[in-house]
This record gives sequence, structure tokens and C-alpha cells, in this order.
Amino acid sequence: MNKKIKIVTIGGGSSYTPELMEGFIKRKDHLPIKEIWLVDIEAGKEKLEIVGNLAKRMVKAAGLDWEIHLTLDRREALKDADFVTTQFRVGLLEARIKDERIPLSHGILGQETNGAGGMLKAFRTIPVILDIVEDMKELCPDAWLVNFTNPSGMVTEAVMRYGNWNKVVGLCNVPILCRKIAAGALKENEEDLFFRFGGLNHFHWHRVWDKAGKEKTREVLEAAYTSVENMKNALKSFTSANSGVQNIPNISFLPEQILNLGIIPCMYHRYYYITDDMLQEELEAFAKGETRAELVKRTEAELFELYKDPNLSIKPPQLEKRGGAFYSDAACELINSIYNDKRTHMVVSTRNNGAISDLPDDVVVEVSSIITSGGPVPISWGSFEPSSRGLLQLMKDMELTTIKAAVTGDYGTAQQAFTINPLVPSGKIAKKVLDELLIAHKEHLPQFKETIVRLEAKYS
Amino acid sequence: MNKKIKIVTIGGGSSYTPELMEGFIKRKDHLPIKEIWLVDIEAGKEKLEIVGNLAKRMVKAAGLDWEIHLTLDRREALKDADFVTTQFRVGLLEARIKDERIPLSHGILGQETNGAGGMLKAFRTIPVILDIVEDMKELCPDAWLVNFTNPSGMVTEAVMRYGNWNKVVGLCNVPILCRKIAAGALKENEEDLFFRFGGLNHFHWHRVWDKAGKEKTREVLEAAYTSVENMKNALKSFTSANSGVQNIPNISFLPEQILNLGIIPCMYHRYYYITDDMLQEELEAFAKGETRAELVKRTEAELFELYKDPNLSIKPPQLEKRGGAFYSDAACELINSIYNDKRTHMVVSTRNNGAISDLPDDVVVEVSSIITSGGPVPISWGSFEPSSRGLLQLMKDMELTTIKAAVTGDYGTAQQAFTINPLVPSGKIAKKVLDELLIAHKEHLPQFKETIVRLEAKYS
Amino acid sequence: MNKKIKIVTIGGGSSYTPELMEGFIKRKDHLPIKEIWLVDIEAGKEKLEIVGNLAKRMVKAAGLDWEIHLTLDRREALKDADFVTTQFRVGLLEARIKDERIPLSHGILGQETNGAGGMLKAFRTIPVILDIVEDMKELCPDAWLVNFTNPSGMVTEAVMRYGNWNKVVGLCNVPILCRKIAAGALKENEEDLFFRFGGLNHFHWHRVWDKAGKEKTREVLEAAYTSVENMKNALKSFTSANSGVQNIPNISFLPEQILNLGIIPCMYHRYYYITDDMLQEELEAFAKGETRAELVKRTEAELFELYKDPNLSIKPPQLEKRGGAFYSDAACELINSIYNDKRTHMVVSTRNNGAISDLPDDVVVEVSSIITSGGPVPISWGSFEPSSRGLLQLMKDMELTTIKAAVTGDYGTAQQAFTINPLVPSGKIAKKVLDELLIAHKEHLPQFKETIVRLEAKYS
Amino acid sequence: MNKKIKIVTIGGGSSYTPELMEGFIKRKDHLPIKEIWLVDIEAGKEKLEIVGNLAKRMVKAAGLDWEIHLTLDRREALKDADFVTTQFRVGLLEARIKDERIPLSHGILGQETNGAGGMLKAFRTIPVILDIVEDMKELCPDAWLVNFTNPSGMVTEAVMRYGNWNKVVGLCNVPILCRKIAAGALKENEEDLFFRFGGLNHFHWHRVWDKAGKEKTREVLEAAYTSVENMKNALKSFTSANSGVQNIPNISFLPEQILNLGIIPCMYHRYYYITDDMLQEELEAFAKGETRAELVKRTEAELFELYKDPNLSIKPPQLEKRGGAFYSDAACELINSIYNDKRTHMVVSTRNNGAISDLPDDVVVEVSSIITSGGPVPISWGSFEPSSRGLLQLMKDMELTTIKAAVTGDYGTAQQAFTINPLVPSGKIAKKVLDELLIAHKEHLPQFKETIVRLEAKYS
Repeated sequence: MNKKIKIVTIGGGSSYTPELMEGFIKRKDHLPIKEIWLVDIEAGKEKLEIVGNLAKRMVKAAGLDWEIHLTLDRREALKDADFVTTQFRVGLLEARIKDERIPLSHGILGQETNGAGGMLKAFRTIPVILDIVEDMKELCPDAWLVNFTNPSGMVTEAVMRYGNWNKVVGLCNVPILCRKIAAGALKENEEDLFFRFGGLNHFHWHRVWDKAGKEKTREVLEAAYTSVENMKNALKSFTSANSGVQNIPNISFLPEQILNLGIIPCMYHRYYYITDDMLQEELEAFAKGETRAELVKRTEAELFELYKDPNLSIKPPQLEKRGGAFYSDAACELINSIYNDKRTHMVVSTRNNGAISDLPDDVVVEVSSIITSGGPVPISWGSFEPSSRGLLQLMKDMELTTIKAAVTGDYGTAQQAFTINPLVPSGKIAKKVLDELLIAHKEHLPQFKETIVRLEAKYS
Repeated sequence: MNKKIKIVTIGGGSSYTPELMEGFIKRKDHLPIKEIWLVDIEAGKEKLEIVGNLAKRMVKAAGLDWEIHLTLDRREALKDADFVTTQFRVGLLEARIKDERIPLSHGILGQETNGAGGMLKAFRTIPVILDIVEDMKELCPDAWLVNFTNPSGMVTEAVMRYGNWNKVVGLCNVPILCRKIAAGALKENEEDLFFRFGGLNHFHWHRVWDKAGKEKTREVLEAAYTSVENMKNALKSFTSANSGVQNIPNISFLPEQILNLGIIPCMYHRYYYITDDMLQEELEAFAKGETRAELVKRTEAELFELYKDPNLSIKPPQLEKRGGAFYSDAACELINSIYNDKRTHMVVSTRNNGAISDLPDDVVVEVSSIITSGGPVPISWGSFEPSSRGLLQLMKDMELTTIKAAVTGDYGTAQQAFTINPLVPSGKIAKKVLDELLIAHKEHLPQFKETIVRLEAKYS
Repeated sequence: MNKKIKIVTIGGGSSYTPELMEGFIKRKDHLPIKEIWLVDIEAGKEKLEIVGNLAKRMVKAAGLDWEIHLTLDRREALKDADFVTTQFRVGLLEARIKDERIPLSHGILGQETNGAGGMLKAFRTIPVILDIVEDMKELCPDAWLVNFTNPSGMVTEAVMRYGNWNKVVGLCNVPILCRKIAAGALKENEEDLFFRFGGLNHFHWHRVWDKAGKEKTREVLEAAYTSVENMKNALKSFTSANSGVQNIPNISFLPEQILNLGIIPCMYHRYYYITDDMLQEELEAFAKGETRAELVKRTEAELFELYKDPNLSIKPPQLEKRGGAFYSDAACELINSIYNDKRTHMVVSTRNNGAISDLPDDVVVEVSSIITSGGPVPISWGSFEPSSRGLLQLMKDMELTTIKAAVTGDYGTAQQAFTINPLVPSGKIAKKVLDELLIAHKEHLPQFKETIVRLEAKYS
Repeated sequence: MNKKIKIVTIGGGSSYTPELMEGFIKRKDHLPIKEIWLVDIEAGKEKLEIVGNLAKRMVKAAGLDWEIHLTLDRREALKDADFVTTQFRVGLLEARIKDERIPLSHGILGQETNGAGGMLKAFRTIPVILDIVEDMKELCPDAWLVNFTNPSGMVTEAVMRYGNWNKVVGLCNVPILCRKIAAGALKENEEDLFFRFGGLNHFHWHRVWDKAGKEKTREVLEAAYTSVENMKNALKSFTSANSGVQNIPNISFLPEQILNLGIIPCMYHRYYYITDDMLQEELEAFAKGETRAELVKRTEAELFELYKDPNLSIKPPQLEKRGGAFYSDAACELINSIYNDKRTHMVVSTRNNGAISDLPDDVVVEVSSIITSGGPVPISWGSFEPSSRGLLQLMKDMELTTIKAAVTGDYGTAQQAFTINPLVPSGKIAKKVLDELLIAHKEHLPQFKETIVRLEAKYS
């Protein structure tokens, strides 16, 4: 590519935007950016202006001539875009609070990415992303869609499967953090280690080799995953990394449960490997009004206060408390790699294409990939042992069933997705939770309208 | 086959034996039986004699010259056997009580076939069945092994995978009951319906077609599976069938959860589709000292009292309360079909061989099969929809991991099996349950000896 | 089904029709036929009348009141049909002569089912069958399509894949003949043997078990497939069976080539296992003007002379020289099994559905199936050894590529189909043969019109 | 790795050795070589000394202190080796002449890698490589085996499958040449293009993308593969590359046969896509005593005369006529990448591991891989279209069947391998060719001894 780049960020009023801006500025010598469009909706207008003005100050302070546009007109922004990043949350943080608190109020995990809450988030988000894709087909048919909207894997899968849009990559910061943990645990430079990641978003495993070609997977498990203390030590050298695990409770796996797995689980596997313990922790947070959603909401309010400061022209360090560190590394580096055909190894959500033999070729997986100008090319993972294979297959099918429910608005399919989700103990209470969530989010769930009307009548 | 048949029943002192005898007697014109050997262990000697004498009286009353041998010498019995049936329970009903009560005491389902209890049962049973197979290789290398020992699917898989013995068929009465429910629901003769079953033991689904070739799957779901009342009505015409569901709580699925599945779950799917409700029910039974194990123990005591009656020479009708009706139909008809190459359609646990596309060829599945003199030949099921596929794949891998733990005695593998089992909420309590079960069953778990010694030290 | 049956035979003027009639008459007690419509095209009108009148005489002689309709109006015939059988040849036997002679004139096998000739036959036939399917969707949407038009497997696949019509079954008499050979070789009753067939039309293998469950595959190979003499002996007891192999040269496999295959090839495997020898034999026939097509043409002329005899009211025994014996058994028995839900085991072309693990679920295979009122349900074959697996996979992909060329009319795809077909040595001569065949059949290849115009210009 | 490197080359007396030496010398700054052992057998002693002395002169001229050892004692050489390269030919070039001339004398392609000749080469080579692996297990259990002995894919597969040795990589120069052709055709720098290769040794395809992420596969096909002239033009800029295609006749594909394949065949695909034309060309060479084997023999004689020159201390440019250019690039760069964990992209024969979805995980494929210190990690290829898939699957199974015959010495299996090989028209003549080859190579085929004795008796 030789032309100057136009980048569009949907959900541009997000508190993450300064990090994204920092990431672009850091790569200014490699990315000939002409314009960045921050797009948001009416309800996010105030935040868009606060964060957008900070973005302008950051660009100016960096001595760059990039145009920063703030707009509520998505179609105007998308016109001739080269890269579209998505970081929006339908219903804002209020919706996340419902996603987390309603299930917990019935003793069930909320988990806003892969749990009951995450499924509802998928129900709200997928129709919107499919709309965006329709706009892109018309307005910027050659653009790449870089998605970090959660549930990132499901959203990416929906874009490919139902939107028939292949130029999409899903991103997450968890694999980055996993790499840092391994490097910390082995006291090695991250670049000296070779990693292979395989699985799904927030549900992947990895293996590690050192510079001499020796596999160090077991050593990493022992050194970092057998206690909370060990994990903290492994992360110690990365000041900002600490925030990475802020999103979920910090409880250790059971040592013998993982030591001979042959692969390293990600932090979100805690939800599946020590489900009960995670639930207890979250129930306590719920009781104190300190679910992650609530904490994030407070953090965000503080952040936006900071962002308003007309003298601020850098990403404020307090942003790291928000969680989600390294997103800028992921998103900006991905764009950089595509634009410059860098062939970097990154872990992204992309079409499986055989990389994981235990899943169909045409599903989205999160897997180590080579990032070329033609997009991500996955590195073969091979197959899993039974101790992880079936759980992975179940999770993929939970995703597919959830996406189908999101697209069709079929209530039975939604119930089935809830039934097979391992974070939701099925039965009457789960149905109650689903019903309550559907009603609570009704303004963002047009596809479920009929069901919701019926449910409202039933419960009223 | 022309020679007279020698049948050996391991666990011959079981309360089921009269039903088995009745099954053989009913088929006397087709099965030229010469001798039946009822084998048991020292601890089961008294029951063996009671039930063995009843068996002798039954044969005599039927005017048959079959030899009935009662023995504690398994190897003597196996010599030159044609069919070996296995219906033993390592540790007797006392062990089942532990399998059910220990998990429930921590708020976790016991489920003595696929739950925490079932995994422990697999740990106890698999080493014994592999011993039997070693004897068979030496003493009756052409015999068929007909297994109804639970967990029937895992035991059958262990025999094939680790015993390298292919002439084995796993049996269960649940599919028989499912057929009767469908016939009752549709008000059709069972023989007029065509069924295809696919899945695993206690974890299969089926589809139904009528005489005109119309699929009636949805009709059966509506008519029998949407409420307890409907299920009872469907079963009404089969007096004895009622007992079939006695083994597990009788709670209905949620209608919308199943109506558009396209396949009919089996009764044991309640554990997965309405896990919480089943757990509540079982916790109540636990509190009253009325777990299924405890009820069965009482029923058995009553049965053996009846069996002692020297005037009794038929299967007493009270046996039906025991659960497990139609086992005789299954086992005796299977032997009949193999012996006479009847090519009957039966649902058995056998090597997948592609019948279910979503599982490897070399695993054991429970699937509609044609029973030939060369053994079962599965009928193709094809593939599942995501709403059931992943759960099936997980269950198979839970089985494989459990079997691996049973064979190796590896504690980490046992923990992983517990972790991925959908009936066990993972975490510290699950580990506690596993540990307590291992210690409680220690005399039947030689392969875990080292682990158990360590655990005893830890908890003492 | 209770209503009276309407059967439609497309290509009703075929010389096979009397056999079909005989088959229906033989099953008169089971099939309540009301009307049989024999449909043909203008060019086949004379033959239609000759054979149609014979059909009427046969029905009358059998004392039946079935209506026999002769028509050139396909749509009139299809209205409300229950079963539609297809046995037409686009371009009549003249086309077959070209299919066989043009390749042979360049030293290449013609093979009118799977070779160069067969591919051209597919190009001519598939557009017609897809037209018929479109009519059926409108006029008889519940009817079954029973296809014996060659290449039977490809035609069936095209109907499913491109016609989106699932109620189709492909038939062939080769498996029937294989069964008779095995029975003859083992001196057993065919019914006492259990067979499993797997593969594709004219490209399947089978295994055999006796009444006692012993596999007899190797014995059959030795007794019938190691020399022409042995094969003849095996077939001796079936007077009419001899004609079954008349369609292709009768040369033996090389003994060591097949004895440890573990599976029995079909007669058409001679083309692949002893390609050169088959080619030599056919080149000799070609030189003498005695290709199979030419012989059949003469036989047909004689047959129609016989058919004209107003005193003839049975199938004349001379028909057996035509080849294709047992088609009536296959087609009429299939209809009988579907109508009466007989659950007979037959070998048919149907959707794989996992029956053969080495091929995708959604392709058509020829495999042992249970014929129910809902159609064929395949019996699991499992997987093949490498010594046959790859060849099977290649043949399936040759079929898929041929069908794609037939549907799209793409010349490159046609060349690729020729390139990968193992009966066509690829290169310039093969291209010459393809070009010459396209031009020779131009009036029946509208989809290739542009290519043919170009080729004609080039070669003129 | 920090220790100094010991490299062992089995077949060190090969004419290729100077190129290998040149490759190592070129990488002297990256590879801390201590010693290179050139191993050969008694019959190759003279050549070993000639080429070994040249190697010593080359090292000296480069100012290096590497020890060059010449030995006939393989075990002494293997002790503590780090890398073992294999480039031997059992039976020397005389055997290759038989491999090519005997089939051609019967009108059949010899093709010394994948044809009749190649299968015999596999029969001779595989027992020897398995012996080497046994020595390595004992003497240098941590070494990497870098194989360029043809048939490279089959040899690599045999080492993994029957030798149970996973540290093996198979190499070939064809992919390197394909890359140069693409670069030449597109007039781009090779490094600016992104390639994905998938298939088997001498039977792979590739796709190409440019720096902007646009796929250029079709452009390369058009510009380089549609005529001999185009291919020559594409290669023009690479002076040495011309020699790369010297090994096989230089005939063009048929344009329409390949243009819409979507993938680019390799040069050896000519044997499958234009088999007849290749055969004609080779029959002409045969008639003139100019088969490739004979030409190579003459070239080698000339080369060894050159090598004798005590003043020669570089690789003589005439070596390029020998064919096999870029082997040094491949082998030395592979060793360099492993030693230094360079993560270079190379095309190697390695375990599939899902990279090609259409083949089992556990077979060897030739595929783009990342070369790490832990060995090659394949890049996902995905699946093939039917127009290439089946042929690939057949070739893999031909390889597996050939290897099985090589290991077991079973004559039936050898016949089956010949039967399914697409370069061998099956039948009586093919059997004659197999028999004649077995007899001709009898001293190198101990595993077929019994068969050969029997055949000799038969033909004498």
C-alpha cells in the first residue's frame, strides 16, 4: 500500500481511545496515517468529545499532521476507510452491569465475555456489527475490520459466517499477557521464546519453547500457574501487565489439575477449571456492589475527568487500572503488520483453516498466525488431548449456538446456548436468568422482540 | 453356530439374574443352551446361592435340561465359554451409596454412571474387567463379552482400547425405554416405527419415522417430553416400563429447550439440560437418606427375601421396582441375534466406525446397529448440530480421560476428568470430593494406592 | 402409504422396460399400482410404442388392471407421481458409440460410465436430469426419484448437490452380481451371507461374512477373483448372471494384487487394477467394430424385433444378452421396500452421512443401506486402507469435478476432470479426445456451446 | 545451542558435497562448526576421497579451522553428532539407470522419485535409513536428521512412522525453484512475495501474494506456466536456476488445464497433468541412451575429474548442470535456522499436524513451515478443491503403500503400490516391470528375498 491511510474507530468515545492513539503515534514512522475518524452514537457524544479532544492534543503534541475527525455519522466516516476498528459496547457500561449482576443475583456467573452475560452481549452486539459490515460492503469494500469488541471471537465468527466478510481479524490482549507471564516465569526475553497458541477467544492454550528448541511448557506451568504468588512473581517485571488480570478474579488453578496437561491454559480457563471458586469470589464482589462492571464504571468516570484536562496530551497512566493493557500493541501492531506485510507472529481470531484439527475448517479460532498484507495465516496447532479437546469443541459449539440465536432471535436456540454453556448450570434458574436478561436489555434486542413481549406478559 | 451354548455370567449373584434367566427361557427354542455358569466373589457367595437356586428352579419349572453352575472360580467358569455377560458391581451396593452420598454431602451430583460417582465406579470396575479379558484371551478366545456393568459405555471402551478385545458389546435399557415412549406418544406399534439412535451410553439422542416415512421426532418431543404428565401418559401402556425411569428423578425438560433440537434426548440428558433441578431433587433425597443407592439397597434386601422362597420359580414381579427393566430383552436378544445371525436392529455400545461423523472412528458409541453373527454393525447417524455436537464430544472426552485415569492411576488425570465432567462444578470442592471418594474406596483402587496414602496423610 | 401408486418411467422406450414390468408384476401383491407412465422423447417414439405395447400385453397377461400410459409429454406424466424412474440415454446408442469409439481411436479407454465416455455422458445427462428435478419440484414434490441412468453415481450426486433434491436413490446391478459371485464361490445361499459394500458406483468394494460370523472375504477372493475360470465357476449356478459381466471385458485381476486387500473389488475395478489389459482388449474390439456400444446396438435392434411380436407377453429371455440383468430386482425391490417400509438391505447410491469415514458427509456413495419408507439409511463401512483409500478419494473428486463441468460448462474444469481421471492418460492426446467428443456431441451440450464453437473453428 | 557443531553427511562422496560445503562456508559467521564427517560405503571410497579432499581445500581456502573427516565407519561418525544429513543412493547411479530404463523398456515411465523407479528406490533406501536411525538413537539421540535422499517425502515418512524418530526434516529444491519462477514471472523480489506451499514432495502446489496483499496466483500461472517459452523467461534472471528443471523434461502444461486451478502446480506435476507427453519425451531419450540417469552419470564422471584438480578449492560452476541447484541453500539454511532459531519460512517435508485438512494429521507433507530451534512448524494450508484434492490423497496413499511394502517386503503390497501409482498403467506389463526391477536390484532388497527367488525361478 502506498496511499495514505484512513482509519475509522467505531466506539471512538471509548476510554481505550488514548491507548489506541498512543499506539498509532508510536508507529508513526511506519504508518502514513492521513485521517482518523472517531465514531460514536448520540448517547456517547459527550465522551466522544472529551476523548476526541484528548486525541487531537496527543497528535498535536507528537508533532503530527493527522486529521482527527469526531462524528456521529458512521457512514460518512466509513467512506473509503482502510482500517475499521470496533470497540463499542451496545448499551454502554450500564448494560455490562446488568450482564454481570442479574446472573449473580440468581447465584450464576455473569462473565461478560463467555458466560451468561457474554451471551447477552453477543445478542446485542452481533446485529450491530452485521449492520456495520453491510455499510462497509458499500462504502469501503477493501477495508480490514479489526475487532476488539467482546465477545471478540463470537463477533468475528458472526462477521465471517453471517456477514460473509472475510477481511476481519479479532483481537484480544490475553495472549499478550500469557507471553509476558511465560517470559517472566522463565526469566527469558519474550522474543527468545517460541509460542504456539490454539483455541478460542478467552479460551485458548499455549505451548512454549526456548531458544535452544527445548519445550518449556511444563516449566512455565510450575513456575507461574500453581499459585497466585507465582503468577504475581512471573508478572512482576512488567509494570503495566498487572492490570491485565484485573478483569477477572485472581485465583490459582489446582496444581495437579494442570501440571500434566501438556499445554498452558489462559487466565479465563479459571472459569472452567475452578468454576465454583470463581463463582464464590464473584458472589462476594456482587454483595459489595463491586462487580467488575461496577468497578470499571467508576474507573471510567475518573478517567474521563482526567481526559478533560486541556493540559493532558498523553495517555494517562491511570488508564492501566481499566484493564485491557496491550490492546494498543495488539491493534496497532496488527494494522502495522498488514500495512507493511511484516509477517509478525500474533495471536488473533481468524478462520481455522485446519490449524486446529479438532474443529471444522470454517470456524473462527484464536490461534498463532503470521500477519501478512493479505491478512492472518494461521500456524498449525494440530490436535488436542481428550483432557482439553472436548471442552474446546463444546465452547465452539456454544459460540455457534449463541451466534445463531443472536442472528435469528430464536428463543429455543437461546435456551440451548444457555444449556450447553459450561458456566451456566442449566435448569429452571438458568431459564429465569435468561428471561430476566432478555427483558432487561429489551431496547437493544429487536430480534427477540416477540419473545420479550411474551415473557413480560408472563412475569408481570 | 451349531454346538450347544455355554453362557457365563460374572456377577451372577446379582438381583437381576432372574430376569436374565427369564430372557433365556423365553428364547429356549432358538438358543440351544447347554450350561449357564453364575460366577461371583466370596463376598457375594450368599446372594449367589439364593439367586442361583432360584435360577435352577426357574429352569426346572420350564422343563429344560440346562445345567446351572454356581461358582466362585471365574477361570473354571470361563473355560470354553461362548458368551460372557458381566453385571457385577465392585464393592457392592455399599460402594454405590458412597458414590452417591459423598458428592451430595458437598452439594455435588453423585450420578453413579456419568457423574462423580460414575467416574469412581469406572476407576473400580475397569481394572477388574481388564483382568476378565485377560482370562478370556486364554480360556475362551472366541467368546463374546456382553457387558451391562455400568458405566457401560466406558467399560466397553476400556475393553476395546486397553484390553484390545473387540468381541464386546455394551448394553443398556434406556434406548428400549425411549422406543416405548415414542410408540406410546405416537400411539403406534413400536415395530412400525423406524428409529435412529446416536450418542453415548446414557447420553444419546434419537429420531423417529413412521411407517409412511414421515419423520415424527418433533411430534414425540411435544407429546412426551414437555412435561412429566406427558411422559407418564406416553408410558402408560407399558406397565413395566414405569420402573425404567425409577433410577433417576422424574423431572421434565424445559419445553423450548428441546422442541427445536431436531433430535430427542434420552432420560439421562436431564442431568445436563436441567442440572440444577436434578441436583435439588437429589439433595432432598440425600437429606432423607433416600438416595437411589439407598432405595435400591432396601429393594434388593426385599428381593432376596423373596428369592429365598423355595416355591418361587419365576421372576417375581417386584423385581421391576429395582429399575433396569428390559435388560433381559437387551442381553438375551443380543445373544440370540448373534447366535442366529438375526440382523435385528438394536442400540448398543460398539466401535463408532464412522457412524457418528463428529467423533473419531475408533471410539465406542451407543448407536443403532444391525446385530449379525459377526457382531454389531452400526447404522450411520451422520453429524449433529452445534446445539448437541460439542456436548457429545465433551462427554466422549470425559469418558476417555476417566478411563485413562482408571488404567494409569494418575491423580492429575483423575482431576482433569473431574474438571471437564459437566455434572461436576470444578474447583476446590470438587477436588475435596474426589479425594474423599478415593479414600473411601481405597480397597478397590489399587492403581491409586500411592495417591491415596498421600491424601490420607494430608487429611488426617 | 395407502393410496394407489403412480409410477413414471423416463426413457420408457428403453429395451429394459420389459424387465422393469416383469419386476413390478412379480411384486403385484405388495405394490398397489394404479398407473405406469412410460415417457420418451420424439426421437424415441417408435421404440416407446413397441415396448409400450409389449408392456400392456404383459400387464394384461398377468391379469392386472394397471393403466399403462405412453407419452411424449413429460410434465403430464410427472403430475402427482409417487415414483419416478429414469433410464434414459441422451443421444441414444449413437452417442454411446461415439463415447466409446472416439477415445479408442486415439488409444484411450472409452468406458461409458467412469472413463472418457462416461464423463461425456455425464455432461449430456446432468442438465436433463436437473430439468426433470425442476419439474418434479412443481408437479410431484413428494415423489422418489429412482435413477439408473449412467453414470448412476454422478447423476445421483448432481441431483442432490445441484438440484437440491434429496428424495433420490441411485441404482446399479453390479452389487447384486457381486453377491451372487460370493454365494457361488462359497457355495452358500446368498441370504445366509452378510455383506458390507462401500465405495462409489462402479467403484465399490465389499466384505462377506458367513452365518457363523466368520469373515469369508479372502476365501471369496481366492475362489472367484484369481482367474476367469474361477469367476465363471462362481457364477455357474446363476444362469442369467452371466450376462451381468457382459458389459465389460472378462479379464482376471492379478492374484497377488488383490489377495491381501482385505476387501473384494467389483468387476469395474478391472479398469483400474489392470488398465492396460482392459485397454488392449477394447482396442481389439474397436478394430473389429465390436465395441460394447456397437454390440448393444445390434442386440437392441434384435430385441425390438422380438418386442414387436403381438403374441409376446413376457420378457423375452434374449434380453439377458443385453447386460444389466437384475436391474428389475434392484429398482422394483427398492420401490417395494420404500413403499412397504421393508427395511431390506440394498446397495444404493445415497448421501454418505459418515458411512465411509474417508469421504465427506455430503457426497454420494454407493453403500449397503437399509431401505426404509423414509429412504435409504447407510450402514457404516468405516475407513479404507491406504491401498484403496486414495483411489476412492480420487474417483469421488473426479466425479465432483466432472459434475461441476457438466453444470457450469467450463472447459478448464472439463480438462481437469479428464486430467485426474485414472482411465485417461493425460496430455495432448487426452485434450484432443475431449475436444473431439465435445464437438461430436455438440447438439446435446448446450452448456459448452461457446467452447465448442471455438474448438470447431480451431480444428476446421 | 552454544556448543560447537558436529555435522555428519551420509553419502559424503556425492557430487553434491561441494555445494553443501559452499553453503556451510557461506554461513560461517552463524554456524560455529567444529567438525564435518563425510561418510560413505566401501564402493564409494574413491569418490569420497576425491570430493573429501576438495572439501578440505575449500575449507582451507576459506580460512576456516573446521575439521573434515572422511570415513567408511558410520557409527564412528554419528557419535555425538548435532546434524546428520543424508544424500546417499543405494546402488549408486547404476541403480538409477535400472530404475529409469527397465520401465521405459516396457513403455512405462521410470521417474526415479514418484514413479516405478522411485518406488524401487524407496524399497532400497528405506531399510538403510531405518538402520541409520537405529544408530542415531544410540549414538546421537539429540541430533536432527536432514534428509535429501529421494524419494525425500517417503524417506522422511518412513523415518517418522516406522523409525519413530521425530527430529527429521525432508528437503527438496523444487519449492525454491517455484519461488524463483514466481518472482521472475511477476518481476518482483522473491522476498516481497508471500508464498503458501502445500502437498507432498515433488507433488505440491502453491499460492502467491504480493506486498500489497493481493493474490497473484493466476498471474503467475499465466505468465510462467502456459508455455515453455514463458517458463524460460520467468527463470531468465536466475542464471543457476535453469539447471533446476534439468532433471525432468521441459514440456508445458495445457493452459486451460491449469489456469483456473486456483493453485500453481510444481514442475513434477507435469508427470500427472501431461503424463503421455512426458512419457513420449522419455521414450525418445531412452532410445538414444540419454535417460536422465545416463546423462547424470556422464556429468558426474566429468565432475569428479574436475574435483580431482588439486588447485580447485571452490564449487566448480559445472556442478549446476547436475541438477539440484539450491540444495545447499535448503540444507544449510535449514541447519542455520534450527541452530539459530531463525524462524525462517521454508518448504519442508514434516508431519502434517492439520496443515492440510484433507490428509490425516500424522502423515508427512511438504508444506510451508516456520523453522524454529524446535524444528519445523507448518503453516496452515487448509483444504484443496476436488480438482486437486483426490489426486493428492491418492499420492499420499501410494506413498504409504510403497513404504509399507518397503518395510514388510510383501509382494502383494508392492503390487498394490504399483497398481495405484498414477504414473504406472496397471496390468500385466506393470507386473512384469515390477518383477524385473525386483530381480535387477536383488542385492539391495533383502526384505524381498523370498519373492525374488520365486520370481527368478519363474522367469528363468
